Amino acid sequence: MSEFILKKFKEPEVKNPVLVEGLPGIGHVGRIAAKHLCNELKAEKFASLFSDTFPPQVLIKKSGIIQEMRNDFYYWSSEDGKRDILFVVGNTQSSTPEGQYLLSNQILDISEKYGVKTIYTLGGLGVGRIVEKPKVYGAVTHEKFIPELEKLDVIVRRDGMGQIIGVSGLLLGLARIRGLEGMCLMGETSGYYLDPNSAKAVLEILTKLLGVTVDMGKLVEKAKAAERRVAEAQKMERKMMEDLGIIQKEPSEDQMRYIG
Amino acid sequence: MSEFILKKFKEPEVKNPVLVEGLPGIGHVGRIAAKHLCNELKAEKFASLFSDTFPPQVLIKKSGIIQEMRNDFYYWSSEDGKRDILFVVGNTQSSTPEGQYLLSNQILDISEKYGVKTIYTLGGLGVGRIVEKPKVYGAVTHEKFIPELEKLDVIVRRDGMGQIIGVSGLLLGLARIRGLEGMCLMGETSGYYLDPNSAKAVLEILTKLLGVTVDMGKLVEKAKAAERRVAEAQKMERKMMEDLGIIQKEPSEDQMRYIG
Amino acid sequence: MSEFILKKFKEPEVKNPVLVEGLPGIGHVGRIAAKHLCNELKAEKFASLFSDTFPPQVLIKKSGIIQEMRNDFYYWSSEDGKRDILFVVGNTQSSTPEGQYLLSNQILDISEKYGVKTIYTLGGLGVGRIVEKPKVYGAVTHEKFIPELEKLDVIVRRDGMGQIIGVSGLLLGLARIRGLEGMCLMGETSGYYLDPNSAKAVLEILTKLLGVTVDMGKLVEKAKAAERRVAEAQKMERKMMEDLGIIQKEPSEDQMRYIG
Amino acid sequence: MSEFILKKFKEPEVKNPVLVEGLPGIGHVGRIAAKHLCNELKAEKFASLFSDTFPPQVLIKKSGIIQEMRNDFYYWSSEDGKRDILFVVGNTQSSTPEGQYLLSNQILDISEKYGVKTIYTLGGLGVGRIVEKPKVYGAVTHEKFIPELEKLDVIVRRDGMGQIIGVSGLLLGLARIRGLEGMCLMGETSGYYLDPNSAKAVLEILTKLLGVTVDMGKLVEKAKAAERRVAEAQKMERKMMEDLGIIQKEPSEDQMRYIG
Repeated sequence: MSEFILKKFKEPEVKNPVLVEGLPGIGHVGRIAAKHLCNELKAEKFASLFSDTFPPQVLIKKSGIIQEMRNDFYYWSSEDGKRDILFVVGNTQSSTPEGQYLLSNQILDISEKYGVKTIYTLGGLGVGRIVEKPKVYGAVTHEKFIPELEKLDVIVRRDGMGQIIGVSGLLLGLARIRGLEGMCLMGETSGYYLDPNSAKAVLEILTKLLGVTVDMGKLVEKAKAAERRVAEAQKMERKMMEDLGIIQKEPSEDQMRYIG
Repeated sequence: MSEFILKKFKEPEVKNPVLVEGLPGIGHVGRIAAKHLCNELKAEKFASLFSDTFPPQVLIKKSGIIQEMRNDFYYWSSEDGKRDILFVVGNTQSSTPEGQYLLSNQILDISEKYGVKTIYTLGGLGVGRIVEKPKVYGAVTHEKFIPELEKLDVIVRRDGMGQIIGVSGLLLGLARIRGLEGMCLMGETSGYYLDPNSAKAVLEILTKLLGVTVDMGKLVEKAKAAERRVAEAQKMERKMMEDLGIIQKEPSEDQMRYIG
Repeated sequence: MSEFILKKFKEPEVKNPVLVEGLPGIGHVGRIAAKHLCNELKAEKFASLFSDTFPPQVLIKKSGIIQEMRNDFYYWSSEDGKRDILFVVGNTQSSTPEGQYLLSNQILDISEKYGVKTIYTLGGLGVGRIVEKPKVYGAVTHEKFIPELEKLDVIVRRDGMGQIIGVSGLLLGLARIRGLEGMCLMGETSGYYLDPNSAKAVLEILTKLLGVTVDMGKLVEKAKAAERRVAEAQKMERKMMEDLGIIQKEPSEDQMRYIG
Repeated sequence: MSEFILKKFKEPEVKNPVLVEGLPGIGHVGRIAAKHLCNELKAEKFASLFSDTFPPQVLIKKSGIIQEMRNDFYYWSSEDGKRDILFVVGNTQSSTPEGQYLLSNQILDISEKYGVKTIYTLGGLGVGRIVEKPKVYGAVTHEKFIPELEKLDVIVRRDGMGQIIGVSGLLLGLARIRGLEGMCLMGETSGYYLDPNSAKAVLEILTKLLGVTVDMGKLVEKAKAAERRVAEAQKMERKMMEDLGIIQKEPSEDQMRYIG
């Protein structure tokens, strides 16, 4: 195998599509958001990319069947022909710095082949605490994108220097060198667990930018399930700390009545 | 030296062989199992693979003679011509992520040259505690393998996502991309020491799948020796903790009689 | 993208220039010094170098616009034609050992193309404590440079072996192999924060060596701002330690009068 | 620069030389031993090898002049024409696993060009405690070397598997693949500091094997200086522990007389 193998299943039917990227990253925000959009639009998978720059392993699905590390390409053609979309999603980024550059350039090569000029990369912004209403931050290749983002309450200007690590950042940097343009949307996330709630916040912006409408129902469900798991974990942690005498027990309802 | 050097000693006499892989990994389960099968079948070594992706070192054998880091290929032709086997065993995997891909593809190239279509990779599944009767887990490239495995009490379906790190996983992933198929058998192991007992559990499944019979005597001996070393280590640990006053001394038999 | 992309904006008008290097390093001393000289001389940017050996990320500027990891080349032609200068500055060095060699050779290739024979690399020497009057250390490719440096109170001879890590060192080593020559000027710095004061000390030597004069005003301002931030941080640290009872509170002025 | 640059100063006048390797490693035992032999025989430097697999840095000598990371080749022709020697010494090994393989193969390529068939690699064996009379261990490519080594009290057979990490090991492993032969001599060393005493023990064996005689005076001096530094450090450590009350003060001579 050379460095990259592209297995193509069919020829995508797209006209001047934009690219939406959602690979694993902090809170898997970008990946969840892109995959949800992909699913809801019933986008079609047209190619898979394998690479020896990916981690040297396979995953095992619940069925016991293995899954290679890979990036998948999907396409969606809008009925009105106004806005076609290519997606790149998957279970991994590269395992080395050079690999990240090679991978990003592969994705751009494939995208350019189908006429992509604009790139939307999606990710999470780790804030180290649980966020109920995650804000969405933006970073752009060209100033012209800023007014539209700010109208949607995306935070673009910031106090100090920031950075976008990995494919979400490199795609934009390398795209601009090639004369393409785009932006990165980042949802606030604790960074402690998969965060569908942050993904939903990002997707609400992205769908407005793309002029598409999708049902958020499944994402809301996933977010609620995640919240339940977090609440459960917090309860267990609290109980453990009570048992260890680190914090005081809260009075039970019965005890409170008695006191009352 | 280019990236890989294959030193071939003879031409293997095989017809549609399967490949059995057992390289070093957790508890060295796969390596012990594959080497035992290799030895008992009196398989013949036909090639050694050297690579600059291996760790930059040599081993020193008890005799004082050095041993290069290498992977060895063996073959075994069944008398009835029903089931020939290629083996890849050795003292190392690659030292880098890309190297693991390169190595796995080298092994597949060599295997395909001799007609391999099905691959059995062997490994350990670390559970962090000593296991007396290790269960065997399976992961497959294609669903069709599952019924036979489940009939042999191999656990295939699982709760969450798992992963197979290294050559045992990559061989399967890359094989499937090439149109080949196979499975990984993983024996439960503590992961604390070489585990011939887990290797025996894996081999009991593999021999049934391959329709071969081998004597497990030497493996049972090795397992007993390993058990004795573990028991000894536990006894020493217990004594140390008694001496340090961390746990109470058990009464000796004499003391027990006295008490009685 | 191959390993390096050079985007050239214009042809530099220089005759036998020297090269001044200031890439990020300890205390960013070299980078601040080179950038200040570049700015004050109104040197012109003529090329940017991109590389997949750089960290796989982009930066986000305060405006929300991304900035690629890159090295920029500037040139300055002296009016009297006595001393032209090329500069290489930027926001990164390479992220791998081999990358550092490749990058240094790229910089030398570009420099040699414009006739560079002498190289000045700038950096910090971490001393682990805050330094009010930073000394400047020098290391040279050829003995002939030593007298001039010592006349300027640069410390050249030292007790034990030292080392110059990264591009500042490699440029000199690789230059000498090519038959070029040069030196590294290192300003003492704590290594805890960006150090414009150390950069100023380095620049005072470099400008004398190059026979150019530049206003240090902005550097002095930056140094004062850095000092204020450090003083502020020390005050906060002191207060925290007082609050925690680790050190005793200093009496306030009022208390002192009362005591008096 | 390609991966390796060989700067050749002159053509070595040798006939069927052996190669002696002494690059930096544990206690710098091999490097000190090889360099001492090189110096005492007045061997001549004939080439320097530079590589982008070396650490990305330069060293600064006491004079303030930089020194590239490099490996140097020396040759010595015996007067009686019985035993010519090539040496490879230097200030570094490679900084990556693949680099170590590339470097070892470079050294072998150069050595084979001048007819080398037998290789002696020198190193330290870290034992984690200060050793007054360091034993010398040996490992060989072929059994035939063992009797001669054992006659010289070199320990060849051992209890378990050992390993030789780095160029000292790889040279032997790769040499054997090429049909060459050799051995590694390892002197016991604490591993805490440069150990000329262990180097002397190794050299006493090597010179007998090579049939050369060299003065050990300078090595003895260096060993004594190292001993003094260690004793000094131990004294300071003892004093610090006394001051901290961790151990009791030894009575001074005066106090002892008084007691007496």
